[in-house]
Amino acid sequence: MLVLRFLPRPHRTGIRIAQPIMRALLRGVCLFLLALAATSSRFRLPPHDQVARVARFVAHQCDWASLATISSHKPVVGQPFSNVFSVSDGPPGSSSGVPYMYLTRMEISVQDLEVNQQASLSMSLAQTDYCRQQGYDPQSPLCAHIILSGSMLEVNGTEAEFAKKALFTRHPEMIDWPTDHNWFFAKFNITQVWVLDYFGGVKTVSPDEYYQASPTNMHK
Amino acid sequence: MLVLRFLPRPHRTGIRIAQPIMRALLRGVCLFLLALAATSSRFRLPPHDQVARVARFVAHQCDWASLATISSHKPVVGQPFSNVFSVSDGPPGSSSGVPYMYLTRMEISVQDLEVNQQASLSMSLAQTDYCRQQGYDPQSPLCAHIILSGSMLEVNGTEAEFAKKALFTRHPEMIDWPTDHNWFFAKFNITQVWVLDYFGGVKTVSPDEYYQASPTNMHK
Repeated sequence: MLVLRFLPRPHRTGIRIAQPIMRALLRGVCLFLLALAATSSRFRLPPHDQVARVARFVAHQCDWASLATISSHKPVVGQPFSNVFSVSDGPPGSSSGVPYMYLTRMEISVQDLEVNQQASLSMSLAQTDYCRQQGYDPQSPLCAHIILSGSMLEVNGTEAEFAKKALFTRHPEMIDWPTDHNWFFAKFNITQVWVLDYFGGVKTVSPDEYYQASPTNMHK
Repeated sequence: MLVLRFLPRPHRTGIRIAQPIMRALLRGVCLFLLALAATSSRFRLPPHDQVARVARFVAHQCDWASLATISSHKPVVGQPFSNVFSVSDGPPGSSSGVPYMYLTRMEISVQDLEVNQQASLSMSLAQTDYCRQQGYDPQSPLCAHIILSGSMLEVNGTEAEFAKKALFTRHPEMIDWPTDHNWFFAKFNITQVWVLDYFGGVKTVSPDEYYQASPTNMHK
């Protein structure tokens, strides 16, 4: 309703309009525009049976991931610990498949990784608008999600340059993060990929299959 | 631009309007409406220093969580494992603070929990529209997120009734999930709450403080 207060009054604009009809029209147009915004999508998922491609697709779409580590902190030493990190496998449209991260040793999960580098990274299309738009519950297998098993490794040289480009293009705020935190670039070194993208239980993909797959639909 | 094709033609409506001005007006109103939709929010975060309230707020806002378990599955036995589950701590506006879940023993992480019930559950406002609207990177502490340590317990009787109401109101798709999966209701039994909602590192909240706090701003 608020919007109607911002409509021009006829005497201001010099336009003769039938106000109730005008309001209905504006409401209709605006609703249409909102519906259009809600249903249009950048998502073109690969077919669900092309599991490695689905995994690459999800990994490229997600801007952040949940990282599971074995905690090194009291009172939960040795227990699993779930935390949130921004990721990028490349600038938009340039997927490498490698989840890069920008980390500091001041961070509680990074401290866990210094004791035990084994970790797991999950990414779900529930993090995007896709599942909501499709009407898929976040726990539904149709709301595609992947789980990566492996370990976290610091990267340097040209790979750190790529990681920087991958992350800073999608997370521009990182450029201004405090330098005294001694940020470094890291990659998730994948040993196994688990995919939930359809009914019938979890499917696995090897790192080789994963890296060879195309996340786009160009070669469908 | 597409929307302009749906504007009424003057001879159809009988309204005399100056078309270019009309288009500009409609465009302005629609842009305003979109901006309004983008900035208006159901979010009224408690002040960041009222940490227990922030934790309760995040727990109530999030419809799903990332669950970390210790894997019982080859080839990652003993390693951390991150996965996605729908949660609800109550119907909208009726927060209990207890994350309830609807689980099946056919699920890979639930099988982990049968071997080792210790787990961690993370929930982030990055899962909602809030952080994007505010311009907070998912990894920024301002994009409030919480980590719950504890274990998963099956619930029965009146608590299962509440869990059912909490989950099915927010995840109506669950009602139709296949009965041969032997779904059951579970709760996350919290032993420690970790909160990242502002600069200065992670803060902890005891289960007592957490359950006593109000997630709303009514008593600010």
